[in-house]
Amino acid sequence: MTGVMMDNGGFCNDNYHSESSDDELVDISDVTVNFSEDVPPLDRDYTNWRPNNSPKLIDLMDDTVPGIGTYEDFNTIDWVREKSKDRDRHREITNKSKHSTVALLFSISDAFSGWLLMLLIGLMSGALAGGIDIAAHWMTDLKEGVCLNGFWFNHEHCCWASNETTFQERDKCPQWKSWAELMDGVSEGRVNVLNHFMYVSWALLFAFLAVILVRAFAPYACGSGIPEIKTILSGFIIRGYLGKWTLIIKTITLVLAVSSGLSLGKEGPLVHVACCCANILCHFFTKYRRNEAKRREVLSAASAVGVSVAFGAPIGGVLFSLEEVSYYFPLKTLWRSFFAALVAAFTLRYINPFGNSRLVLFYVEFHTPWHLLELIPFVLLGIFGGLWGAFFIHANIAWCRLRKNTRLGHYPVIEVLVVTLLTALLAFPNEYTRMSSSELISELFNDCGLLDSSKLCDYTGNSGSTSGSVNATAANGLGARLAGPKLYTAMWQLALALAFKMFITVATFGMKVPSGLFIPSMALAVHNHERDIFRGWCSPGADCITPGLYAMVGAAACLGGVTRMTVSLVVIMFELTGGLEYIVPLMAAAMTSKWVADALSRESIYEAHIRLNGYPFLEAKEEFRHKTLATDVMRPRRSDPPLSVLTQSGMTVEEVERLISDTTYSGFPVVISQLSQRLVGFVLRRDLFISLENARRHQDGVVSVSAVLFTECESPASPGAPPAVKLRSILDLSPFTVTVHTSMEIVVDIFRKLGLRQCLVIQNGRLLGIITKKDILKHMAQMANRDPESILFN
Amino acid sequence: MTGVMMDNGGFCNDNYHSESSDDELVDISDVTVNFSEDVPPLDRDYTNWRPNNSPKLIDLMDDTVPGIGTYEDFNTIDWVREKSKDRDRHREITNKSKHSTVALLFSISDAFSGWLLMLLIGLMSGALAGGIDIAAHWMTDLKEGVCLNGFWFNHEHCCWASNETTFQERDKCPQWKSWAELMDGVSEGRVNVLNHFMYVSWALLFAFLAVILVRAFAPYACGSGIPEIKTILSGFIIRGYLGKWTLIIKTITLVLAVSSGLSLGKEGPLVHVACCCANILCHFFTKYRRNEAKRREVLSAASAVGVSVAFGAPIGGVLFSLEEVSYYFPLKTLWRSFFAALVAAFTLRYINPFGNSRLVLFYVEFHTPWHLLELIPFVLLGIFGGLWGAFFIHANIAWCRLRKNTRLGHYPVIEVLVVTLLTALLAFPNEYTRMSSSELISELFNDCGLLDSSKLCDYTGNSGSTSGSVNATAANGLGARLAGPKLYTAMWQLALALAFKMFITVATFGMKVPSGLFIPSMALAVHNHERDIFRGWCSPGADCITPGLYAMVGAAACLGGVTRMTVSLVVIMFELTGGLEYIVPLMAAAMTSKWVADALSRESIYEAHIRLNGYPFLEAKEEFRHKTLATDVMRPRRSDPPLSVLTQSGMTVEEVERLISDTTYSGFPVVISQLSQRLVGFVLRRDLFISLENARRHQDGVVSVSAVLFTECESPASPGAPPAVKLRSILDLSPFTVTVHTSMEIVVDIFRKLGLRQCLVIQNGRLLGIITKKDILKHMAQMANRDPESILFN
Repeated sequence: MTGVMMDNGGFCNDNYHSESSDDELVDISDVTVNFSEDVPPLDRDYTNWRPNNSPKLIDLMDDTVPGIGTYEDFNTIDWVREKSKDRDRHREITNKSKHSTVALLFSISDAFSGWLLMLLIGLMSGALAGGIDIAAHWMTDLKEGVCLNGFWFNHEHCCWASNETTFQERDKCPQWKSWAELMDGVSEGRVNVLNHFMYVSWALLFAFLAVILVRAFAPYACGSGIPEIKTILSGFIIRGYLGKWTLIIKTITLVLAVSSGLSLGKEGPLVHVACCCANILCHFFTKYRRNEAKRREVLSAASAVGVSVAFGAPIGGVLFSLEEVSYYFPLKTLWRSFFAALVAAFTLRYINPFGNSRLVLFYVEFHTPWHLLELIPFVLLGIFGGLWGAFFIHANIAWCRLRKNTRLGHYPVIEVLVVTLLTALLAFPNEYTRMSSSELISELFNDCGLLDSSKLCDYTGNSGSTSGSVNATAANGLGARLAGPKLYTAMWQLALALAFKMFITVATFGMKVPSGLFIPSMALAVHNHERDIFRGWCSPGADCITPGLYAMVGAAACLGGVTRMTVSLVVIMFELTGGLEYIVPLMAAAMTSKWVADALSRESIYEAHIRLNGYPFLEAKEEFRHKTLATDVMRPRRSDPPLSVLTQSGMTVEEVERLISDTTYSGFPVVISQLSQRLVGFVLRRDLFISLENARRHQDGVVSVSAVLFTECESPASPGAPPAVKLRSILDLSPFTVTVHTSMEIVVDIFRKLGLRQCLVIQNGRLLGIITKKDILKHMAQMANRDPESILFN
Repeated sequence: MTGVMMDNGGFCNDNYHSESSDDELVDISDVTVNFSEDVPPLDRDYTNWRPNNSPKLIDLMDDTVPGIGTYEDFNTIDWVREKSKDRDRHREITNKSKHSTVALLFSISDAFSGWLLMLLIGLMSGALAGGIDIAAHWMTDLKEGVCLNGFWFNHEHCCWASNETTFQERDKCPQWKSWAELMDGVSEGRVNVLNHFMYVSWALLFAFLAVILVRAFAPYACGSGIPEIKTILSGFIIRGYLGKWTLIIKTITLVLAVSSGLSLGKEGPLVHVACCCANILCHFFTKYRRNEAKRREVLSAASAVGVSVAFGAPIGGVLFSLEEVSYYFPLKTLWRSFFAALVAAFTLRYINPFGNSRLVLFYVEFHTPWHLLELIPFVLLGIFGGLWGAFFIHANIAWCRLRKNTRLGHYPVIEVLVVTLLTALLAFPNEYTRMSSSELISELFNDCGLLDSSKLCDYTGNSGSTSGSVNATAANGLGARLAGPKLYTAMWQLALALAFKMFITVATFGMKVPSGLFIPSMALAVHNHERDIFRGWCSPGADCITPGLYAMVGAAACLGGVTRMTVSLVVIMFELTGGLEYIVPLMAAAMTSKWVADALSRESIYEAHIRLNGYPFLEAKEEFRHKTLATDVMRPRRSDPPLSVLTQSGMTVEEVERLISDTTYSGFPVVISQLSQRLVGFVLRRDLFISLENARRHQDGVVSVSAVLFTECESPASPGAPPAVKLRSILDLSPFTVTVHTSMEIVVDIFRKLGLRQCLVIQNGRLLGIITKKDILKHMAQMANRDPESILFN
């Protein structure tokens, strides 16, 4: 292991390590990199001049030693090398295709394999998302009762099956029994208690199953997944994080967790699920299986797919991927992401889990325009959202840190059960918290002013009168806005629900079950709005205000505060409403929210979690603005021992092996001689180690005193000396270099844009030091007065 | 001039040069770069170690010589330097803001100045676009007749003013007289001839005015502008291209050109107009005035604004800017572009030039879903679009080359008049070509099946019966689809119109008047569709097909073929229709079209024009896939004289001046000594020249034999020697370097991503050569078997 520290980093803020995962993100240990063997040399008719000791063309690929060019777990990939590998591969295929028809067909199929892969990802993710929706719907209803026609019907389907019910009463039918109704001789007064008991029991069972499954089979399946996916996309390796077990367990536990009524959403997990699908499907395409950079392009598209199926917003999903998640997002990926997101959205629509033939979860259609004066409450909602976002991030991180550093973290199962118990106990009495988050949002987004268009308003009315407590008001359309006594009850309940949701969400996000954030945030916002509305202008009964719009805007504000999304958020909301009309309110709120939240703290929830876990993530959004130079960051420092370097000739196998075992560096610069320190190239520790092992095993006569040569022309060996190990093929002859005077701004920019792992520092041709990504991250932490040791991985 | 060749490059494929423009894109000759004078040294408590001869912190900014750090016309900027200048500026402001309240306020206003600028750009561009629309509408109608109530009314407004007309006949009113009607005693038979004559005369007048204005005042105002804007955004300097004269003339001539009936659109010019607005407004904000990189961020946003006002599609505009035009597009710009695009769209809506309170030019609302089988014609439309795109690009480039290389190019005024005459003569008899392109598209996009929703269908009906020839069919709604004799006339006319538009558009694009492409392409597609439809399924009278949808899809296909846009195109169309429903057909067509066109030739029309004009544009979309190394591209070649370098000490003023006058290089590497060739830094020719001029003028005792020193510590001069000129402050101590073994793929990638101008090539610490952007472009041209001398600028 090359200096990877794993003492206290981990996932879902706990100490799971890669040992416990048995499938791999990067299953390449058996991959032999043997491109470019019979590539004809390219025609360069205009110049054949080369400097004296120029090597053959890139010979990095000439090796046949397994493992060369692969990465260890919890390490950062070298984007430049991966992209160059892909270009070599492409070149080889193109060249071959000129010679035979089979190769030509292969070349064409290779070119289209990206599109096929996207299609498959879209289909698979759409189908899974549909399945998750259906299952979660059924299990959520199971907490309340069961269908006599068949336990596999959910409430709504149960009542569809029993025909002859009117449109109004479609969800009230004799076939659907609550648990209390199933038991004989339950007195009227105890029906509610019994139902409550069953509700809590089911919730606990679901939560218990979820947490046990996660712990037993796939520790990576917990949490939102977006922080880790961001890190992976930036070029980090976490084996097993996107494997098949994670996919299976995450899918099952997501259903369980959502059904248990915990305050969590499914967008983060859906992104994770889509990325797992993508990663698994990549294994069927050589182009993507063998190349970490290409695979990350596919994963970027998959995260767009995840958001697309979560909200039915393909364009928003692509922009989300572009803005929030992705690191390297070439234009080709934009187009493919869009394709995959659309396929997924239409697959989901075909499955039709919501029974409304709509692409979107919360389809809303507003008709009344908004007034300019309304911008004031919209901006206020934005400020609220920003404050909430900053508070949420702070509280959640504090809670996670507590969990990590105290004994609390040792009992994840108990923690989940306690939170579920609390949620279920407190949620049941309040109708707004009892229903699932998505139902709640659907109901409150809905424009109840229009009697005919909205069946959810009727539903509210009916259920309201059933539970005997809340707003049947909403059901009566326009008249509802004349404040009545029931309205105040509803307001009070909503206020309670808001407070409850706020606290429980802080505790829930980051627990050891799959959890997302979008939907709880939306739900929060929704509560807020209704209060505003009913108190506000519309008590005089005027038709001036669309309550659903306020819900929408509030949701955008809260989400903006928590995730700091901007364009993608507005576009997702735009796709929900389907009209440019309401973009301005949404934008005003999202903008205010982001400004307010940014003023309080710069990090989004995802970035905060990345930092909490110490992942090596180089944020592309934030500019590095300090005036330090490369010389301030490079290793070795003044007090350190000199840089460990290899010389291009004159070292023996034993010396090199000792250097490898004595140090933990990921790679070593190769210089002409220790005296001159003139740079020749850079060799990776892993490649060096594998090559020497291989030479010892398979090359005749290699002993400890054999010379190790990185030169091209063999130096005249003394007669009788053991054969030399020639390693020029693993030497990177074009390492990136900067000078000691290069400002760190530029160095950071180079690392970000080119995706480097390390960079050598030279002055006037002499090698002076090295800067790795980890050094940069530590330096950045230091400049921001944070603990530089919080960066854990290479 | 540093080797800028201007012999045969130019704009609108002609030989206009910057001499003829009197305002400047880059008006920075009077800017003094004097940042960071009193910046307190940053606290670096963790290390103070520096290598021995480390300089002060970046001292590039310490100079006060005017002109240092600026660029010459037709040169490429250095993105790294510009961004670092901006960071220095930001750092200075942040530091100052900690000390005084005024500085704090200034810092806040500076932070928000970007948003204010975006607001202003949006307002100004929206207002201009509204004005252009209104003026063009009026002048187009003027070709046909005049309003008796006042000549300033257009046809529609004229008839609004005359009340009591029914909804059906709103455009037929006694106040509006055609030119023939105004004259007494014109016999019935000659009315049409007279009207035709007037129509042609007006068209010729408008076209003549347009071309004369362009030639006389602002040669840069011709053409589409998008190729040049792409080049400018990639970091090229074209002074005056975005100046105030260009803005004024382009606005006026755009109106004239559109009104003259030429087959051109206004999107390209609107993008140019928006960019001019942005550039002019930048002058009011120091942050943007003085920094080329920051200004390009603003221009990226402005191009989004241009598309936003052209189509009323803000999201599509942003994606267009991201996908098609921009080079450097950080996320901050994404958000700001979106804001500006929205402001512009709403400004335009407020002005309401189309009188329909809609954001979009061709608002369409389809109601019937499409059938899976319909994908076949959609894909066929895509293939047609791709073929058309490839043909159009080829034909247009061939025509432009002809114009450039033969005597034809010497008579631009005559050329414009001839094309206008042809257009007007041929267009008048056919109702579909007589109306303006946008009217045509509006009419044909419209879903005539719904009697009540579409007033344009009625309009068609009426005018159809007036002209006595064409499809009143369309007006009669559903029944219209039963094929009648009039239908075949309409089809025939549409086919003629299609052929006519195809040829005339090829000749029009690239003439010396402002011209865009989108709308003609759309119009083309529209024709195509109607044919398909009427012939196809709908003759049996079924309600199965939405003709407008086919128009839409055809338009997308043609546009896709010509511009090779993908996501942005689909999103623009999506914003026009406002429903996800029709994304799949649009996408299928756009995708097929792009594939077909790409198979025929890789370049979009914009790229083809960039190449035609020899601009130094490094395409970011296309990967460089050849297996060459840095050593194959670097200068000097083997047969060349050795690289011109400066030594860090030991040269005299005279020697340096001689080097400057003897060579045309844009900059010189500085080495320790001619013998060792160890690299110290890089100095730009312009900076060197200005500094030496300045030293000779203002520094006492500087003579030809004075030493020029790039070292920090002064070497002990012999007593009595003249004072040395110390130039370390203009020396870039951290030039980018690659090794001779670096593959060109990586070099190209570095140039693109970091926006370099040049890069030094070293081997084992010795400087061997230099690669400039122009070298790379020449190399790429060579690898693609094109003439490397086609690259004209640095």
